[in-house]
Amino acid sequence: MGAASLIPEQVVAQHASRDSCWIIVHNKVYDITDFLDEHPGGSKIILLCPMLLYQCGYEPIHPPDMISSNLPRRSKPSASAAEKPETDEQKKRQLVLASRPPLDEILNLHDFEAVARAVLTDKAWAYYSSASDDELAIRENSVWFLPRILRDVTSVDWSTTILGQKSSLPIYISATALGKLGHPDGELNLTRAAAKHGIIQMIPTLASCSFDEIVDAAQPNQPLFLQLYVNRDREVTKKYVQHAEKRGVKGLFITVDAPQLGRREKDMRMRFVDDGAGAKVQEGQSGVKKDQGIARAISSFIDPSLAWKDIPWFRSITKMPIILKGVASPQDAIMALEAGVQGIVLSNHGGRQLDNSRSGLENLVDIVAALKTRGPWPNPSFSVFIDGGVRRASDVLKALALGASAVGVGRGFLYAFSAYGQEGVEKAIEILRDEFEMNMRLLGCRNLSELGPDMVDASALHTHAGLAPQDNLYAATYQPLRLAQFKEFKL
Amino acid sequence: MGAASLIPEQVVAQHASRDSCWIIVHNKVYDITDFLDEHPGGSKIILLCPMLLYQCGYEPIHPPDMISSNLPRRSKPSASAAEKPETDEQKKRQLVLASRPPLDEILNLHDFEAVARAVLTDKAWAYYSSASDDELAIRENSVWFLPRILRDVTSVDWSTTILGQKSSLPIYISATALGKLGHPDGELNLTRAAAKHGIIQMIPTLASCSFDEIVDAAQPNQPLFLQLYVNRDREVTKKYVQHAEKRGVKGLFITVDAPQLGRREKDMRMRFVDDGAGAKVQEGQSGVKKDQGIARAISSFIDPSLAWKDIPWFRSITKMPIILKGVASPQDAIMALEAGVQGIVLSNHGGRQLDNSRSGLENLVDIVAALKTRGPWPNPSFSVFIDGGVRRASDVLKALALGASAVGVGRGFLYAFSAYGQEGVEKAIEILRDEFEMNMRLLGCRNLSELGPDMVDASALHTHAGLAPQDNLYAATYQPLRLAQFKEFKL
Amino acid sequence: MGAASLIPEQVVAQHASRDSCWIIVHNKVYDITDFLDEHPGGSKIILLCPMLLYQCGYEPIHPPDMISSNLPRRSKPSASAAEKPETDEQKKRQLVLASRPPLDEILNLHDFEAVARAVLTDKAWAYYSSASDDELAIRENSVWFLPRILRDVTSVDWSTTILGQKSSLPIYISATALGKLGHPDGELNLTRAAAKHGIIQMIPTLASCSFDEIVDAAQPNQPLFLQLYVNRDREVTKKYVQHAEKRGVKGLFITVDAPQLGRREKDMRMRFVDDGAGAKVQEGQSGVKKDQGIARAISSFIDPSLAWKDIPWFRSITKMPIILKGVASPQDAIMALEAGVQGIVLSNHGGRQLDNSRSGLENLVDIVAALKTRGPWPNPSFSVFIDGGVRRASDVLKALALGASAVGVGRGFLYAFSAYGQEGVEKAIEILRDEFEMNMRLLGCRNLSELGPDMVDASALHTHAGLAPQDNLYAATYQPLRLAQFKEFKL
Amino acid sequence: MGAASLIPEQVVAQHASRDSCWIIVHNKVYDITDFLDEHPGGSKIILLCPMLLYQCGYEPIHPPDMISSNLPRRSKPSASAAEKPETDEQKKRQLVLASRPPLDEILNLHDFEAVARAVLTDKAWAYYSSASDDELAIRENSVWFLPRILRDVTSVDWSTTILGQKSSLPIYISATALGKLGHPDGELNLTRAAAKHGIIQMIPTLASCSFDEIVDAAQPNQPLFLQLYVNRDREVTKKYVQHAEKRGVKGLFITVDAPQLGRREKDMRMRFVDDGAGAKVQEGQSGVKKDQGIARAISSFIDPSLAWKDIPWFRSITKMPIILKGVASPQDAIMALEAGVQGIVLSNHGGRQLDNSRSGLENLVDIVAALKTRGPWPNPSFSVFIDGGVRRASDVLKALALGASAVGVGRGFLYAFSAYGQEGVEKAIEILRDEFEMNMRLLGCRNLSELGPDMVDASALHTHAGLAPQDNLYAATYQPLRLAQFKEFKL
Repeated sequence: MGAASLIPEQVVAQHASRDSCWIIVHNKVYDITDFLDEHPGGSKIILLCPMLLYQCGYEPIHPPDMISSNLPRRSKPSASAAEKPETDEQKKRQLVLASRPPLDEILNLHDFEAVARAVLTDKAWAYYSSASDDELAIRENSVWFLPRILRDVTSVDWSTTILGQKSSLPIYISATALGKLGHPDGELNLTRAAAKHGIIQMIPTLASCSFDEIVDAAQPNQPLFLQLYVNRDREVTKKYVQHAEKRGVKGLFITVDAPQLGRREKDMRMRFVDDGAGAKVQEGQSGVKKDQGIARAISSFIDPSLAWKDIPWFRSITKMPIILKGVASPQDAIMALEAGVQGIVLSNHGGRQLDNSRSGLENLVDIVAALKTRGPWPNPSFSVFIDGGVRRASDVLKALALGASAVGVGRGFLYAFSAYGQEGVEKAIEILRDEFEMNMRLLGCRNLSELGPDMVDASALHTHAGLAPQDNLYAATYQPLRLAQFKEFKL
Repeated sequence: MGAASLIPEQVVAQHASRDSCWIIVHNKVYDITDFLDEHPGGSKIILLCPMLLYQCGYEPIHPPDMISSNLPRRSKPSASAAEKPETDEQKKRQLVLASRPPLDEILNLHDFEAVARAVLTDKAWAYYSSASDDELAIRENSVWFLPRILRDVTSVDWSTTILGQKSSLPIYISATALGKLGHPDGELNLTRAAAKHGIIQMIPTLASCSFDEIVDAAQPNQPLFLQLYVNRDREVTKKYVQHAEKRGVKGLFITVDAPQLGRREKDMRMRFVDDGAGAKVQEGQSGVKKDQGIARAISSFIDPSLAWKDIPWFRSITKMPIILKGVASPQDAIMALEAGVQGIVLSNHGGRQLDNSRSGLENLVDIVAALKTRGPWPNPSFSVFIDGGVRRASDVLKALALGASAVGVGRGFLYAFSAYGQEGVEKAIEILRDEFEMNMRLLGCRNLSELGPDMVDASALHTHAGLAPQDNLYAATYQPLRLAQFKEFKL
Repeated sequence: MGAASLIPEQVVAQHASRDSCWIIVHNKVYDITDFLDEHPGGSKIILLCPMLLYQCGYEPIHPPDMISSNLPRRSKPSASAAEKPETDEQKKRQLVLASRPPLDEILNLHDFEAVARAVLTDKAWAYYSSASDDELAIRENSVWFLPRILRDVTSVDWSTTILGQKSSLPIYISATALGKLGHPDGELNLTRAAAKHGIIQMIPTLASCSFDEIVDAAQPNQPLFLQLYVNRDREVTKKYVQHAEKRGVKGLFITVDAPQLGRREKDMRMRFVDDGAGAKVQEGQSGVKKDQGIARAISSFIDPSLAWKDIPWFRSITKMPIILKGVASPQDAIMALEAGVQGIVLSNHGGRQLDNSRSGLENLVDIVAALKTRGPWPNPSFSVFIDGGVRRASDVLKALALGASAVGVGRGFLYAFSAYGQEGVEKAIEILRDEFEMNMRLLGCRNLSELGPDMVDASALHTHAGLAPQDNLYAATYQPLRLAQFKEFKL
Repeated sequence: MGAASLIPEQVVAQHASRDSCWIIVHNKVYDITDFLDEHPGGSKIILLCPMLLYQCGYEPIHPPDMISSNLPRRSKPSASAAEKPETDEQKKRQLVLASRPPLDEILNLHDFEAVARAVLTDKAWAYYSSASDDELAIRENSVWFLPRILRDVTSVDWSTTILGQKSSLPIYISATALGKLGHPDGELNLTRAAAKHGIIQMIPTLASCSFDEIVDAAQPNQPLFLQLYVNRDREVTKKYVQHAEKRGVKGLFITVDAPQLGRREKDMRMRFVDDGAGAKVQEGQSGVKKDQGIARAISSFIDPSLAWKDIPWFRSITKMPIILKGVASPQDAIMALEAGVQGIVLSNHGGRQLDNSRSGLENLVDIVAALKTRGPWPNPSFSVFIDGGVRRASDVLKALALGASAVGVGRGFLYAFSAYGQEGVEKAIEILRDEFEMNMRLLGCRNLSELGPDMVDASALHTHAGLAPQDNLYAATYQPLRLAQFKEFKL
């Protein structure tokens, strides 16, 4: 630990290959070469780790307990790594952080996004905010309210139960990856805020904090869900799921819309910024694959062969409710019902997977109609959730009116902790709570069971009239006609 | 009253709590601590009063007669308060006032809005102009005319009767709060102009002038309506309503879409401008509740338990026609009819309550259709009014063609007196009158009874094609994809 | 005529009232006081004449023959009027004129509009371009083509007959007022170009050139139509109509959508520009009525009592085909058919009358459907024309496919001669001819009878999806919500 | 060949008429006067050639083998032509080329367009990018996906056969003219890239490289299609088609939507840039026809009399599958089926022919519905292709889901080689391949036969809600209303 044992940062950087891979965790250097094959998320992501660390300027995105307790430690890195002087970007960042609007000035979830955009590194912002291809799938606002009047709304109650668990709001925290890109405490910000305000967090497979770290941070009996990317090696998955159940997780959300993670070009574009060597590969060197972005780099372990035939196997390894996350078509909704799972999440994966996918809200209308043909509705043993684009309690209430059981909020909370840590998440929950109170009163609903399809006008949903996606790249290249030009003259 | 009795402004400012509350009215200081509980609008608004005074730079927004005749006076405030030198903002304001376009250049109601925006303080503008949440409920312009030809339109008559009262135009002045934020004479500007031009003013519960002050300013037999926010203490409400009836008010418009006043973030945002101390509450001090805006501060007395069961009670305390203001759904329209009230106002409260509520115009089509199933139409004992977004006589005529009895105009007149006082309101009425004459002729209607649904094409209303709400905050945070970047080069 | 007889311009300007009215025509001063009551367009327009002259910098807008042969001449105005030095605006205008794009660079009718806008005085541009109120009625582009293939289109023929007169194109020149605001030769530019290219001009009642001047400029047997504003004094109208028939006019287009000319605020706004005295009327002097604009000033003679009962009278005074110009509703179309007139023009008066009127194209679909219920279609003795917003041959062909007999083009030619005189009109006709040839070939139509409703998709017309009117004044006053603000900081 | 034989460039330029026409090819001067009448594309295009050469700064756009082996050579042009110093524009171009983003930064086909726009001359860009008239026919993005889940998508296969030929992607390279405007190797870039990646190129009649040059560049057995503009002289066409068949071409795409090439004003406008002499033709010299643009100049040989009766003749001269390119209406689709051709291409010619034509995608829905009424579907002996606006694999998959056999991509590849030559095309194919892999997985399709109409929501297609064409010239000339103006003041 003395100065003699310091390893210069440049040396660490040289060990970034399959044959020799060192990483820096909590100011200590670990040799993880032998560990690469055992990594549940595949080896690629670890090889990318050093890069991620440097670009974030944060703690490692992977759970320290998992690494420090299992890995051969080399030594402390040299001072040049540990105490490297502040760069201009870091100085700017400090200044931006100090200039954040006071938390009390944050009035809505959009505000968090604006602050997060300013305080995040460009690469973290690109990863969080990117959607797929032309990013045509955006916020849906073509459902309109028909509020009711003259009902005593002195007390209104927007609490509910989600998969049998109490929730103070009809929302849950949806899984989003790599929380430490946004804040050193990563997903723990969510765990702690969820505990305090009685809502449920869905733990992501690709969390920056380890699963156990998150569960350890939770309060006793705090309900948690688990989002699962299914590994090509089913034993890894089985161990992961059964460990989760043993630790008390209350629902398993299997992601079914991501056999491969989407091309998110905003994220991919970031790989090239400030890359002086780029010119050299201009012609004929396309073997160099730097254009992948974070999303594709970390997802190679996901099993594209996952299919309906696997559902009974999942049923056999766990007693947790099983929810299929990422359903879009009415046929699949019915197949899910018949496969005996406990619910589905209608989602277009935050616009991050298949571009031009219809919003969960639009699919909800068709899917509820389809499910009604297969039995009583609402069905107490089959829940329909949606997520995507939620910024307001009103977005949630529209979905509930149209038949959803609850709504997942992902980026909203991600931006909240990126901007203000745990307090940001708490403030976001408080804002939504205020909005729920207000909206329930103005809708004339005393509790969520009074919401119904007669309180919304969803007739414009299918015409997409309220959803006019801007085709940004098309618009950026289209050159408008111009009129005949006058000759220049001076007065 | 001598110099010795002057109370420094700072001292007054210290008495702004529940335990000791002093205010400055007409350059005199009053101790209103004991009066707080008796205030018909609740005590909170009074505690906020001093703040409001300072921010408006105007007369107090509350009626001076009510206060000066009932309250213990302390003394005249010191010269520092009474004669404080002009600030830069006040100087700028004087300059702007002097630069207003001459009244004759005002061609339409939009012009008043533009002038009002320039002459109002930022906070007054924010209060007047704000709508709720994302402000998605905007002006409706998707109804189109099918005018008739070759009818003798030498004389056209757009006068009507509203709840049995004659009106020179098929509009009434809808209630808007806190008129003195806009002009020292507040609501009296409306009363006087209404008298001169034969239209009907609806007195707001939250007027800056006292009810009696307004009625006193009216001409003998000038018809007036009353807008009512129902107090949690029904005795206060009963006294208020019966006093109004005794003084000759001709109609009672009970607001039913505001059990709680909406979150108007433009208004709330204003609380933070130029607030140097903000930084201190950045993290963890969310106990400080400064983010309420004017609207929420003044509305705590409103009773959220108001319900259909209260209607017979209202019927029992007054013989005035009772109108429910703020109906949106066809079911509620039918319930109102069956409850025996004399009419309803279809309104989304100027976009200030539930965001994403359909416009009154769109609801009108469905509600008229529903009412037709319950009896003859038009129904002489049940009127349907609408308000919201009216800027043109054509907006009014579309509503009348679709079945409305008359249309309320709120902000249009509010901006008119904010910009030019009473003369502004008169000019606004004249402009509308000119537009009515023109439009009636061009529509081929000699009187309002000739208007009918065959003269409008409302088929686009439900697709919202003409109403493309800009989701401003979403657009402000969404970052478009960009194209591959060229390296920099110079010629 | 010597220097001694020169009358200073200022003296002429003083004689601009009902009691003494002098005007300058061809550098001569006339006293027209006694003539005021005999003017077919009412006296108001003459009182405005001097103003118009000065603002145009052109010849008088009224026919010199009518004046010089009938009026007492005072004298030549003084040199100060006749040879007043060039103002800065005039110099600028000369420069702009010299910089016009060469005529061969003009590729379409939009180009003419752009050039006209640059070379016209602000006031002339305002008069020509203005529409009514919020100018919501704009170009319609929501009809789509379904062209046919593999028809021999070596020769295509887009000629037609209009009310029995041959026309080389399926368009006619629609009436627009005050042509000398745009060019010294006014409407004669149209007459001469029409002769050269075999199309038909509709002479406007409010032409700057006299009716006879226009007819005299026409070739022998050149077909002309007449647009008629019906005078309150029917004898004036009768004389005018019968004179027209005697001089060979082939069709009478009675304007029925303008009992009063619309409020065109762009035009009205112009009255105030550079008006230093404006400030004086700011408060309380609204008696001064300067806010009328050109349109309203010249239209007071129009009879608002014109009605269906007058049609037989028109039939009795002329044998010309009678066309009702300005029909919008199916009921009126059927009434016109039953009244025995020879046709109708579906028009929203170029957006200049009732704002928010549906376009002629949209009304065409409904009206053709209605007429088909009353007899065989097409009906050889009843023509349906449309006008409004035509900039392309494709606009015309869409209308013909949907059932129109021909289409009127007004502003397109008005801008053409404002920009380049007669040659501009000829070029505009040539452009349209080229577009007709191209479009007929690409549509697979060898002649106009092959056009039919199966070649267009008009299903989007009623949803107005392609017609998204910008509500300019609303947008100019609406203040978007903004996000939480960072404190200022410097790097 | 010595210095003595050098011919000054100016002299060559003088020989540019019907009577004496010299051109410069590969630094040699040829007299092609006698050859003019034998040119398969008509003589006009050759007369325009020198102009085209100079404006492109490239090799001649016509195949050198055809010329050098058949023409009398004059001599080498003088040094002034051969070695003329670099102009400023050429220097700028070199700089821009050197600054292109490295090929690996290109993430999508939009990127190629942006680079092409920067590196092309203004005139080449105008020719490539222009569409007809108001350019209202733009990219269609109103079809939405309903992806399927839980299908094993480990291996997905997006290969197909097109007219019996294998293709590694469900696309083909559609014909676009004058490839050497974009890159010295012109269409050969496409031929070589197509060979390498197993896709099919359609050779354009108006290629810059000769037909044989292209076929010679192809690999043995590389499938090629031929696009045909039918010559007025059918013998020329017959020779061309039979030569193509002999050389192994596998499909004949007869263009049927271009009896005349469209007016592309962006292209036409370019003719006037930097043309100092323009002013001289301002008035009255409209005989000078410089306003044609490249498109119209080169298309005069196309036969507008082509008709259904010609189809049997084509059948008689070739055994290649015959495809009609440019079908829009369901009636014509059925006529094509009944005429015995092997397929149709639904196209609006890239928006370059009839403006306001519906997109191929929209027509596809109606045409597939019509074809289903005439027999089993899909029909193995009748293929339906579409082209136009393709920038993403998702655009292709939408079309296949709705019934298309394959999709043509034209400009996408044209821009790719304009920007980066053959490597650009290869990169474009790789990008599409990646997108196909991704989208197939995300759609849950293992091969193209699993795509079907239930996977897309095309209900918004007919309302054109997602297709809001900007009417650029209209918007550029429309002057918005403005509000009343304040007088100027200073603080």
